[in-house]
Amino acid sequence: MKKKRIIKVCLLAILMSINFSCNKEKATKLSYSKIDSKHPNLILTVPGVQKVKSNIGKLPILDTSIKTMKAEVDKEISKGIDVPIPRDFSGGYTHERHKRNFFMLQKAGLLYQILDKEKYGIYVRNMLMEYAKIYQTLPLHPQKRSYARGKLFWQCLNDSNWLVYVSQAYDNVYNFLKKEERQTLENKLFRPMADFLSKGNPQFFNRVHNHSTWGNAAVGMIALVMNDNELLNRALYGLKDDGISSNMKDNDGGFIKTKGQKTGFYANLDEPFSPDGYYTEGPYYQRYAMYPFLIFAQALQNKRPDIKIFEYKDGVLTKSVEALLNLTDKNGEFFTLNDAQKGMSYYSRELLTAVNIAYHFGGNNPQLLSIAKKQKKVTLDDAGLSVAIGIKKGKAKPFEKKSIELRDGANGKQGGLAVLRQSGMELVFKYTAQGLSHGHYDKLSFLLNENGKEVIQDYGMVRFVNIEQKGGGNYLKENKTWAKQTIGHNTITQNRKSHFNAKYDIGSKHHSERYLFNVSNPNLQAVSAKESNAYQNTEMHRTLAFINIENIEKPLLLDIFKVNSKNKNNYDLPYYYLGQLMQTNLKYNLPKKMESIGTKNGYQHLYKEANGRVSDDNLKFSWLSNDTFYTLTSDISKNDKVVLARIGANDPDFNLRRDPALILQKENKSKATFVSSIESHGNYSPVREIAVNAYSSIASLKVRLDNDKYTVVEIKTVTKKAYLFFLSNKNNSPKQTHQLNIGKVKYNWQGPFFFKSID
Amino acid sequence: MKKKRIIKVCLLAILMSINFSCNKEKATKLSYSKIDSKHPNLILTVPGVQKVKSNIGKLPILDTSIKTMKAEVDKEISKGIDVPIPRDFSGGYTHERHKRNFFMLQKAGLLYQILDKEKYGIYVRNMLMEYAKIYQTLPLHPQKRSYARGKLFWQCLNDSNWLVYVSQAYDNVYNFLKKEERQTLENKLFRPMADFLSKGNPQFFNRVHNHSTWGNAAVGMIALVMNDNELLNRALYGLKDDGISSNMKDNDGGFIKTKGQKTGFYANLDEPFSPDGYYTEGPYYQRYAMYPFLIFAQALQNKRPDIKIFEYKDGVLTKSVEALLNLTDKNGEFFTLNDAQKGMSYYSRELLTAVNIAYHFGGNNPQLLSIAKKQKKVTLDDAGLSVAIGIKKGKAKPFEKKSIELRDGANGKQGGLAVLRQSGMELVFKYTAQGLSHGHYDKLSFLLNENGKEVIQDYGMVRFVNIEQKGGGNYLKENKTWAKQTIGHNTITQNRKSHFNAKYDIGSKHHSERYLFNVSNPNLQAVSAKESNAYQNTEMHRTLAFINIENIEKPLLLDIFKVNSKNKNNYDLPYYYLGQLMQTNLKYNLPKKMESIGTKNGYQHLYKEANGRVSDDNLKFSWLSNDTFYTLTSDISKNDKVVLARIGANDPDFNLRRDPALILQKENKSKATFVSSIESHGNYSPVREIAVNAYSSIASLKVRLDNDKYTVVEIKTVTKKAYLFFLSNKNNSPKQTHQLNIGKVKYNWQGPFFFKSID
Repeated sequence: MKKKRIIKVCLLAILMSINFSCNKEKATKLSYSKIDSKHPNLILTVPGVQKVKSNIGKLPILDTSIKTMKAEVDKEISKGIDVPIPRDFSGGYTHERHKRNFFMLQKAGLLYQILDKEKYGIYVRNMLMEYAKIYQTLPLHPQKRSYARGKLFWQCLNDSNWLVYVSQAYDNVYNFLKKEERQTLENKLFRPMADFLSKGNPQFFNRVHNHSTWGNAAVGMIALVMNDNELLNRALYGLKDDGISSNMKDNDGGFIKTKGQKTGFYANLDEPFSPDGYYTEGPYYQRYAMYPFLIFAQALQNKRPDIKIFEYKDGVLTKSVEALLNLTDKNGEFFTLNDAQKGMSYYSRELLTAVNIAYHFGGNNPQLLSIAKKQKKVTLDDAGLSVAIGIKKGKAKPFEKKSIELRDGANGKQGGLAVLRQSGMELVFKYTAQGLSHGHYDKLSFLLNENGKEVIQDYGMVRFVNIEQKGGGNYLKENKTWAKQTIGHNTITQNRKSHFNAKYDIGSKHHSERYLFNVSNPNLQAVSAKESNAYQNTEMHRTLAFINIENIEKPLLLDIFKVNSKNKNNYDLPYYYLGQLMQTNLKYNLPKKMESIGTKNGYQHLYKEANGRVSDDNLKFSWLSNDTFYTLTSDISKNDKVVLARIGANDPDFNLRRDPALILQKENKSKATFVSSIESHGNYSPVREIAVNAYSSIASLKVRLDNDKYTVVEIKTVTKKAYLFFLSNKNNSPKQTHQLNIGKVKYNWQGPFFFKSID
Repeated sequence: MKKKRIIKVCLLAILMSINFSCNKEKATKLSYSKIDSKHPNLILTVPGVQKVKSNIGKLPILDTSIKTMKAEVDKEISKGIDVPIPRDFSGGYTHERHKRNFFMLQKAGLLYQILDKEKYGIYVRNMLMEYAKIYQTLPLHPQKRSYARGKLFWQCLNDSNWLVYVSQAYDNVYNFLKKEERQTLENKLFRPMADFLSKGNPQFFNRVHNHSTWGNAAVGMIALVMNDNELLNRALYGLKDDGISSNMKDNDGGFIKTKGQKTGFYANLDEPFSPDGYYTEGPYYQRYAMYPFLIFAQALQNKRPDIKIFEYKDGVLTKSVEALLNLTDKNGEFFTLNDAQKGMSYYSRELLTAVNIAYHFGGNNPQLLSIAKKQKKVTLDDAGLSVAIGIKKGKAKPFEKKSIELRDGANGKQGGLAVLRQSGMELVFKYTAQGLSHGHYDKLSFLLNENGKEVIQDYGMVRFVNIEQKGGGNYLKENKTWAKQTIGHNTITQNRKSHFNAKYDIGSKHHSERYLFNVSNPNLQAVSAKESNAYQNTEMHRTLAFINIENIEKPLLLDIFKVNSKNKNNYDLPYYYLGQLMQTNLKYNLPKKMESIGTKNGYQHLYKEANGRVSDDNLKFSWLSNDTFYTLTSDISKNDKVVLARIGANDPDFNLRRDPALILQKENKSKATFVSSIESHGNYSPVREIAVNAYSSIASLKVRLDNDKYTVVEIKTVTKKAYLFFLSNKNNSPKQTHQLNIGKVKYNWQGPFFFKSID
């Protein structure tokens, strides 16, 4: 045994050295050191199957999971197999049928192992044989929209989904199949598909993008089942020669690849994940990408424990699951940043897998068990079993979501995302990098939730995923013309042009910079960031703070947004509040005919419902939403304009939601400072018909000092208390001491911000 | 015993005959035959108090109720008493303070009896004394909006609320007070207030209206506590001479009184309640009125069991509670008909009392206990005790809501309201009388819910009840200009004018007529009604049916709306669907600038978002709402126009919700038949991103025959099945047989409608 091994290692060394001489990149390539022919060994393992079987009837959540799965698969088996010739977009019959097929294959494979019933093996075999019959003769999918058309689906992405799931099914029925059947499948289906998804579509496979992650995982997983070294290396390190030009773009306008960029699974782990586990595309796509990342990692861990994939990059895979869970609201729904569909949550199948794997392979964090309990299901493998046992043993602890910062960028140096949490309110402040092709032009934007309900929304994407009648369930054109544009976000648009002129190639080169993040005092949490590339010659600096003030019901959100340009510009700052306007001191005109505010850059989609000015020193604007009152108070000058807008203009297919916005405008200024507060206060009961605390507690906001070095805001309450918020604009050192006169009083403090009651 | 009784009866007869000779009206007047001086005896009774006390610690729902009440009152007592000089509208401080005071007085009175603690007696006494100090010198309330200004509040209505609650408090502390204290209260507060609310405001007191019910109950209840016969008679039979002219109107445009109309509590029971317990103003106001009706009835039952108030009009009070519960959706929320605020439900305090009283005094219907369980509280009196015991003994049965018809009108002959229920869907069809001053001009309108979520909405009222910043929490002007107008409802508007020209005095004279109501077959439920007065020379006839069709997921709602006029007219039929448009075959134009559709009668509040025509034989219009797909299919001619509208034009204070509508238009026709179907189908999961059954199952709707006698609609499904729905338009006899040729086939059936599969 030992001898054999030594010979193997030597052989390997020789092989590697040969590779070395030809190509630097191959230096770290893997080849099979151990080949374990005992299937299943990909996701389920032989000992795992035994453990699951021996626990049936003992772990309620496991039993439920098996029962649910069995019912679903049995129903599907009874309907018979259908492998139609591909034709439709997502939402259409053939798309949904093939999609359902891969889920069923994966589940039937699991049931074959766990329930030991031949019928599941037969079902998997027969369906796979149907695919093998047609695959090689299939042309490209007839729908031509994708930059990388698939064969079973309109895009390679979905073909990769298919293979990631079906690899698992194949592994589970491997020993059920005859050798000739395996050969047929491998030669006519799996290898041709793996080649098609990689060599056949380098523009899809050889990227740093969630698409490629799926492609890499698909090729890698089938490689692991087939013990195919060459394919595995392709999956882990990408294609050597891909012929991709650096100008090539995908459907979403994203660049395929920058010059010299590494590719393959490792590259997709290296680049888009920050050391904190934040995935640069945002939580919606992180959720989507988590499945191939983790399922492939699980397979690697099972078949190649020597490469310690879960320790890679300081355990980034486990961290990313925890980061993702931290990017959900009270209901478990992901914050809608970048392209993101509302309502997606940790109840998705991807997060079920992610939580189970992260628990099992990532150190048994008991807080993950409380999420698993809410999910009410476990995966049917070693990971799920671990979770079921943990729950059964009562190890679950509540998942504590705190205020956190997640840095962006491979090295954590490309800005970040901050979540401030206080009294049921969640503020999400975005100062990340572009976020690849799913990123929006929304530097320094934020969103605000309360108890899982949106208060100031981020619009999300314009897409009804998999609803065929809405553009085939794909991205709709308003995603570009509206959702990605800066004016669609709660941040400043300068001169009615989006950040980076909405050019992906420029936006991708830059990121915002964190200025401060301090949540050490829960009653005074602050985050601040700067952006100096979105507009040439303009620096933007936004600071957001949750401040608990004595005798005020809930934390006040203070928003100080400074903009400083070499030129005179117009600045628009919208707040996409949700709800019904209750009261405002804005003196406004209602246009007789409602028109869009502009003609391009997203402005064409906003109706002007009203516009006006404020004759008081502050704008007061309050609304009712989810039976809660909210008031925005803004220090405003008499020249400032205010627009009440509504989304939905120039929307010929009614793809947009008719949601409102309040837009603050400062015109013809080089420097401008927007200072506003947002309060949640009181509530209304339509059953008791009682309005409690229906009015704002803020009497006034006033900028007492505003220069390059300092900004000082005075907050007066209706109970005649006054407070000052000090912000050092240039020096963010926590150790720096500051001294400043406001009125006749001298104030001293240390660090970049300071809050003080004054009398 | 027997002798005594005979003497009593004789005495009564003599008394009555004397009255007879003086005044006809006094014929039925009551006087105190028994005076029970043992307080409490109004709502709580001496034996009741003992029973409640002896059950403390034994009945969980009772303990919870006491605990909650005690916590609330103790907190209030600790803050001290405040009886401010009245100043504000609802929502404002003095209004809300006085309102809170009467609730606290009532609760403290109860706690004084049940917990035997002096501090509650002292609190009630001290606060009442504060009121006694100021009451007589108080001027009319400074806010002048009401047709009947109060003293404590801006309207007598609220002063009456106060007295209804405070009478109970006074009864509970009666024996705690010294005689002189009682004299002070009665002479300086209660009697003057009772006189002010009756003699001082006949236009308020002497009506058939929920306002007067409150006034009557207030005066009657304090009369019962003070054993004041004259006041009691005034409450029961109204004022003899009120000097009200028949032209006088209230703030809402309602007539105060028609000539010769009876008044007082009995009159308010006689007229607005139908024999089925439907209250003509609609469920929202029925809920509001139920409290004074039932609490006064309970007091009468306790002090004057001889008059058997709960047997009055065949037990209408109990029936009305059950009717009201039947007018709620899955969440217990009332259908929003006429003036009504959304979200009001059987969790309101009025329904807590109503359910408890109806259970205790109305025959112990065990279904009421399941509602009481959901309410999680009971009233602290004999009625609540009964309920608590019933629940404890496990007697509760589910409250079964079925398809029902509730007739309108004192004699049940003024049309009605139908609720068809099937598979979680609820259709509410309105063919009632006007509904007094809170009625809308909405003859033959309907609304549709599914699982407690609105599908086709009734707008409800334009009012944010008790939210001060919205017009003092009162009705907003758009209630008249929008909410009451016909175009704001899912029914036909002719020539852009509302039914009865929105004239209350005309509308009040008429009602629609039920044509058929048949729910004997749950798979084929139909309701039909006619309206011939809304427009002169025009008859409208609408038929709505829930039809379960084989292999179609949910019941199809078929809507046949015939209109027949002597003149050529334009007809508009809107559907206020809620949700996002998914797909339509309508070819529409989007106006560059969005304008209102019209200038008056509600049209001024509708924006035209798009308008077009259909080149196919059917309009198909589908939308997504609450993750469910809906499709409207309409048999439409090429001349018909379709408008996509949105509420919110000419709404300077942003009082309206920006909800959408689909408006079908037929122009320049004397006869027209609108035939549409509405399907609920499939669902969408934003977590699974799967759309199930996203397309309509209806291939086409076609009117095969349409004349004065018959209308026949053919329904074809996408699975190539065909069906005919036959409607006899003139003969609604269930026994009549019909024979008709459609194509070459002869059809025979019996009764006014018939549904048949054809091949």
